Amino acid sequence: MTDTADFPREPERPAGWLSPDAIQQARATLPLLYVDAVPVRVDESGDVVAVGLLLRVTPEGVMSRALVSGRVMYHERVRDALLRHIEKDLGPVALPQIPASPQPFTVAEYFPTPGVTPYHDPRQHAVSLAYVVPVSGDCRPQQDALDLAWLTPEQAADHQVQLEMTGGQGLLLRQAMAHVGRLP
Amino acid sequence: MTDTADFPREPERPAGWLSPDAIQQARATLPLLYVDAVPVRVDESGDVVAVGLLLRVTPEGVMSRALVSGRVMYHERVRDALLRHIEKDLGPVALPQIPASPQPFTVAEYFPTPGVTPYHDPRQHAVSLAYVVPVSGDCRPQQDALDLAWLTPEQAADHQVQLEMTGGQGLLLRQAMAHVGRLP
Amino acid sequence: MTDTADFPREPERPAGWLSPDAIQQARATLPLLYVDAVPVRVDESGDVVAVGLLLRVTPEGVMSRALVSGRVMYHERVRDALLRHIEKDLGPVALPQIPASPQPFTVAEYFPTPGVTPYHDPRQHAVSLAYVVPVSGDCRPQQDALDLAWLTPEQAADHQVQLEMTGGQGLLLRQAMAHVGRLP
Amino acid sequence: MTDTADFPREPERPAGWLSPDAIQQARATLPLLYVDAVPVRVDESGDVVAVGLLLRVTPEGVMSRALVSGRVMYHERVRDALLRHIEKDLGPVALPQIPASPQPFTVAEYFPTPGVTPYHDPRQHAVSLAYVVPVSGDCRPQQDALDLAWLTPEQAADHQVQLEMTGGQGLLLRQAMAHVGRLP
Repeated sequence: MTDTADFPREPERPAGWLSPDAIQQARATLPLLYVDAVPVRVDESGDVVAVGLLLRVTPEGVMSRALVSGRVMYHERVRDALLRHIEKDLGPVALPQIPASPQPFTVAEYFPTPGVTPYHDPRQHAVSLAYVVPVSGDCRPQQDALDLAWLTPEQAADHQVQLEMTGGQGLLLRQAMAHVGRLP
Repeated sequence: MTDTADFPREPERPAGWLSPDAIQQARATLPLLYVDAVPVRVDESGDVVAVGLLLRVTPEGVMSRALVSGRVMYHERVRDALLRHIEKDLGPVALPQIPASPQPFTVAEYFPTPGVTPYHDPRQHAVSLAYVVPVSGDCRPQQDALDLAWLTPEQAADHQVQLEMTGGQGLLLRQAMAHVGRLP
Repeated sequence: MTDTADFPREPERPAGWLSPDAIQQARATLPLLYVDAVPVRVDESGDVVAVGLLLRVTPEGVMSRALVSGRVMYHERVRDALLRHIEKDLGPVALPQIPASPQPFTVAEYFPTPGVTPYHDPRQHAVSLAYVVPVSGDCRPQQDALDLAWLTPEQAADHQVQLEMTGGQGLLLRQAMAHVGRLP
Repeated sequence: MTDTADFPREPERPAGWLSPDAIQQARATLPLLYVDAVPVRVDESGDVVAVGLLLRVTPEGVMSRALVSGRVMYHERVRDALLRHIEKDLGPVALPQIPASPQPFTVAEYFPTPGVTPYHDPRQHAVSLAYVVPVSGDCRPQQDALDLAWLTPEQAADHQVQLEMTGGQGLLLRQAMAHVGRLP
């Protein structure tokens, strides 16, 4: 939920969507609904063998790793938002297995004020429904992402990787690994 | 999520909160974040023995039953919103046991257009995190509610009771009962 | 969890597995660990469009419908037991998507005494971890099943279909539909 | 799930329960059903502020920390087993809030062979349903436990504390903290 992670998504808004002014006001007055997806590779028994992280460069030139993340739009179902953001970040042939149940494994509350929760987004108060999403197809990072790296659950929890994730997404990733029984 | 359920909550908004115009615009352009709580009585083993439903009269003079439901405010944690709405609807000594985990049992997506999902709210697109909340204290319906009725899980799933719940809350109640193993 | 549902599974036990006497004794003294799988077809957004039910004839000549269900063996992971039972009942090319997380949507406790819980198994005390499992391949009923019928969530909750399910599996199926947001 | 953790529980078995020989045979041929409870203190909003760990001395004289854990008996409901083990380990006035839903936050599979899963029990194959259980009363360690220590979530995830937990319970504790949003 860094600026870089969200900026490229702005232009796709259809006509009638919020103007920059209106979105600015909403961000200062309402919690915004997001989804976070943790893309994973699973084996035949459903066991997670790898987790996919997007590699980006922040405006400050720092490398950062990120989950698939984005806003739920007006009149869009959560499951459709999940699919849309995964296709936008991983490409059209990632073949994601969107969960049958809307029950997220956790709810990440990104506050503009650091320290209220472990998640932080300086731009806004975003509440994100978080899902683990197996993908079985070809994943190609899109738009602003330089690369998509597949890490083992052990590598994903590594201190260095965690440092490269911002806003609490490193924690969210480890919560996902805990949920699938792969927290190191 | 009827008008009656939400109207009395408007006055409590602090200064700086959305103006009626702004909330009107937000409702037409963004999904709003809500919580739904299903208040229950449990026995010593945690088994649900009764579910609490608020009884209200709609502006049209029709009796309706409702769950505890309301918006999550800017810079408010989901668990604090749950506590606030339960205290507002059930009184200050209900002694709710707010869940330790933010994982809801389901996510109810109320669309302004009927039929997109089983939930419907003509005013807005509301996405609600739904929790079962045991309450062990004295519950006294507040404000616009006429009564709080404690029903057995079987009574709560009864056709007549279901008819008295609007916007899909009857379904949400049955999903809650399914989650706790008490769907008849 | 009828006799017919389980009998064909007995012969497959490897050498060293429990003798008929030993299993008989275990059944009278220990809760046995089972898995229940609700096979579903999902659309691109993960929404459940159909649920698969096995059609069998009981020894008494009565038609019955059943979920995929079976015991977890010694030194077998729950996810491997899920895969094994799905392949045994739906064939080798069903392509099940075994859940990445071991968290079941519910735990069904089949008691030998009716009425303790909504689930009943006259032979034993079985505790079953229940999962919704999307299958994307060709499903062919195996062994003792006459057919595999794909029903819509609405049809699956129909009174007549529910009557054809025994031991509480009709309820378990409706709980699964509640979990995926498709309870009628 | 060390020997010490379970031994004191043997004498309480009612007449008709498994003989030592029979339990020995069951342990070598069947997965046994267990429950694990993570006792926590929560604040008014349900946020976990402390986690309770039992302090024991192993037969080898080593200090170890443990969760509340024990077997589900024949004809016993999972929620009753949870209550029984909590009362046995924390005393009769711990006032546990047994979860309304049977859905565990995870399933811990303790294998007799190390490395199959992250959990290990040299005596047996035990499959444990794991729950976070808020306790609001007075907790007094019973029987073989020397003490019950209340740690913050941060302290509980500390490397030294983790080292004092055996069989994978340190991981299970961190999974519990991930589930309640308190993984450091």
